[in-house]
Amino acid sequence: MPSVLEAMPLDRGTDILEQPGFDRAQELIGRLPLDRAADFVGAMSADRRADIFRRLSDPIRSRLSARLDEPIRASVQQLLAYPPTSAGRIMTTEFISMPADWTVERALQHIRAVGGTRETVYALYIVDPGTQQLRRAISLRQLILSDYDALVIEVGPPRKPITVSPLSDREEVARLISRYDLIAVPVVDDSRRVLGIVTVDDIIDAIVQESTEDVQKFGGMEALEEPYLHIRFGTMIKKRAGWLCALFLSEMLTASAMQSFQGELEKALVLTLFIPLIMSSGGNSGSQATSLVIRALALRELQVADWWRIAVRELPTGATLGTILGVIGLIRITAWQLLGFYDYGPHWKLIAATVGATLAGIVTFGSLTGSMLPFILKGLGLDPASASAPFVATLVDVTGLVIYFSVAYVFLSGTIL
Amino acid sequence: MPSVLEAMPLDRGTDILEQPGFDRAQELIGRLPLDRAADFVGAMSADRRADIFRRLSDPIRSRLSARLDEPIRASVQQLLAYPPTSAGRIMTTEFISMPADWTVERALQHIRAVGGTRETVYALYIVDPGTQQLRRAISLRQLILSDYDALVIEVGPPRKPITVSPLSDREEVARLISRYDLIAVPVVDDSRRVLGIVTVDDIIDAIVQESTEDVQKFGGMEALEEPYLHIRFGTMIKKRAGWLCALFLSEMLTASAMQSFQGELEKALVLTLFIPLIMSSGGNSGSQATSLVIRALALRELQVADWWRIAVRELPTGATLGTILGVIGLIRITAWQLLGFYDYGPHWKLIAATVGATLAGIVTFGSLTGSMLPFILKGLGLDPASASAPFVATLVDVTGLVIYFSVAYVFLSGTIL
Repeated sequence: MPSVLEAMPLDRGTDILEQPGFDRAQELIGRLPLDRAADFVGAMSADRRADIFRRLSDPIRSRLSARLDEPIRASVQQLLAYPPTSAGRIMTTEFISMPADWTVERALQHIRAVGGTRETVYALYIVDPGTQQLRRAISLRQLILSDYDALVIEVGPPRKPITVSPLSDREEVARLISRYDLIAVPVVDDSRRVLGIVTVDDIIDAIVQESTEDVQKFGGMEALEEPYLHIRFGTMIKKRAGWLCALFLSEMLTASAMQSFQGELEKALVLTLFIPLIMSSGGNSGSQATSLVIRALALRELQVADWWRIAVRELPTGATLGTILGVIGLIRITAWQLLGFYDYGPHWKLIAATVGATLAGIVTFGSLTGSMLPFILKGLGLDPASASAPFVATLVDVTGLVIYFSVAYVFLSGTIL
Repeated sequence: MPSVLEAMPLDRGTDILEQPGFDRAQELIGRLPLDRAADFVGAMSADRRADIFRRLSDPIRSRLSARLDEPIRASVQQLLAYPPTSAGRIMTTEFISMPADWTVERALQHIRAVGGTRETVYALYIVDPGTQQLRRAISLRQLILSDYDALVIEVGPPRKPITVSPLSDREEVARLISRYDLIAVPVVDDSRRVLGIVTVDDIIDAIVQESTEDVQKFGGMEALEEPYLHIRFGTMIKKRAGWLCALFLSEMLTASAMQSFQGELEKALVLTLFIPLIMSSGGNSGSQATSLVIRALALRELQVADWWRIAVRELPTGATLGTILGVIGLIRITAWQLLGFYDYGPHWKLIAATVGATLAGIVTFGSLTGSMLPFILKGLGLDPASASAPFVATLVDVTGLVIYFSVAYVFLSGTIL
């Protein structure tokens, strides 16, 4: 494949390398002779070029960089200087801008002349002829529906354009593009000069990637940067072992809790039968609440300041769900006792009451903990998406045991405890 | 607000109702006098109109429908007849098509004439002048960069257009748009006539909504159709109680399993101390594996037929992770024993070995179960995203107890068992 590419005309080869969905371009580039690779990279769109540069290994990147023409090298360096998920990193510098005093006709001629080399011709940026400051963002649609003699500054409604800074996170850019149905968002510097644009194509990839990261984090691991089947074994272990060990160490507190309740366990072994059932119910209700809040925070439906609105909703929700499970638990124990499937002893009614009340309490507690954890993480400046289902389950497990034995103590003290 | 809207000129009011991100339009429409509401709805874009119709209550929908002009009523009925997440439901019928024998100049004039009333002018569909079959999809960019005297059929490379059927799922449409960086995908009938188009704007909303549904399902509940704070209490309980009760009933098997091991528990109460730790480790590793596979299936990185490729990766991954946790568990028990924090009895070395070996086994089993569950669900024609973290944890919990007591039996038989 590299040799086929080497023999190809420049424009055909670039077409192949730029094909959307073709994610092995950096490999091919890395295997081509340096001069030929520099030709291809020079002919690419700026954001695709930056994307490939980011994925090249360090030695190839610096050798290739030295062969590039100065303006191209500078533009690559500039894009790579911004943080990885920032607007500055994913923007393209190939956009169309024009002075405010041009006519529509002149603008159309300009687009016909330069359009072939730009990322998009659908979003057009009108700048002040003197200061180069951004004054208006118009669409090609508005332009071609306008009178040819009109000035471009008069095209479309006189709205202040929506802009982002090069340091804005791509999630913020995605939110703007999706909310206002935009084709592109301009990235401006402090004096409102346009540095580049982020297009809707780039942002779809970003949205999909963010969602993947969120699901993986919610599953209780670090996000992977590549598809499952491309990840090497060692990387996979590294991404999973960290959280797994952290959760394991925290969960060891359950063993300590059980040890401290050993006296009760010896007297009332029957209580152990329901430990898995009770702990998992707390974890499950917590996992539901967490998934709701993480997603609502990601979509900006909720702010950190809204935490109390969620708390006052989750409290009755958790209590209702807990009561439902508590009643089912009560019925189960009563049925097994009366039908003779199992003998919970002379105080079976008290045991059933203990399990029922604990379930109601732990599901309420789980829902509240699960819904508040993402807020707490966000408030601490951490990623709320790290509030994974296993994290919540672990939190609820330890406290759940304490709740269980406390309730048991109240209900069974003087009988079997 | 409805009275303000009532007094407004039609085009200003429609602008407000069609504003992206404004999701209360159906409420306002429902409160306006019928005739005025019909005016607004008639002036809207077809897909926005269908969207609002979908959200209206049944009586208002039929009353309003009766007031609409015949062609508009027919187009609404047609869009609403397709399944909720199909291309047919989210497509717009307001697109630009033209016969293959037009010139570029004539096409541009046509766009200037009708462009104001179409969803997008950037994707253009070239049809056979006789049969109306779709022959080519070109972009406005390609058109304006072409020679004015050329025929539209000669614009752009002669590729067969990418199309979908009205019954295609929006996830499939999203995948095509994102993969090929398209502005819109045409929806064609069996004889390749264009029924409508799905634009990138619509698909971003669909991608975001699908991701939200996947996260909520992964959290162990039914997906909500509205933002958290808009959901009524009763609906919230309904969406969460179903799965919570199903999981609770399955988890009851742990109580039955514990009952059947009661003899062992009485003899070796010390084993109960590690039950929560062991069960949660299995659940956590399963949750990691499930999140990876669900996401890879959603992105079509994996097919159902790939299940064995995942199985042969998860087996060594799970075994490695399990060994890491097993060793930590061994160290913990040994340390507590030697440092005098707790006395696990004279056979503490065997107990430590039991816990260590069980952890290795259960994490391997959890990783395998967690990664295979989405494939099994998909193979059965169910939604793989229903393989939630709580679902996997429940599956692993019950089998985990059996593994634990079996390992204990092998290691401790003849000593404390």
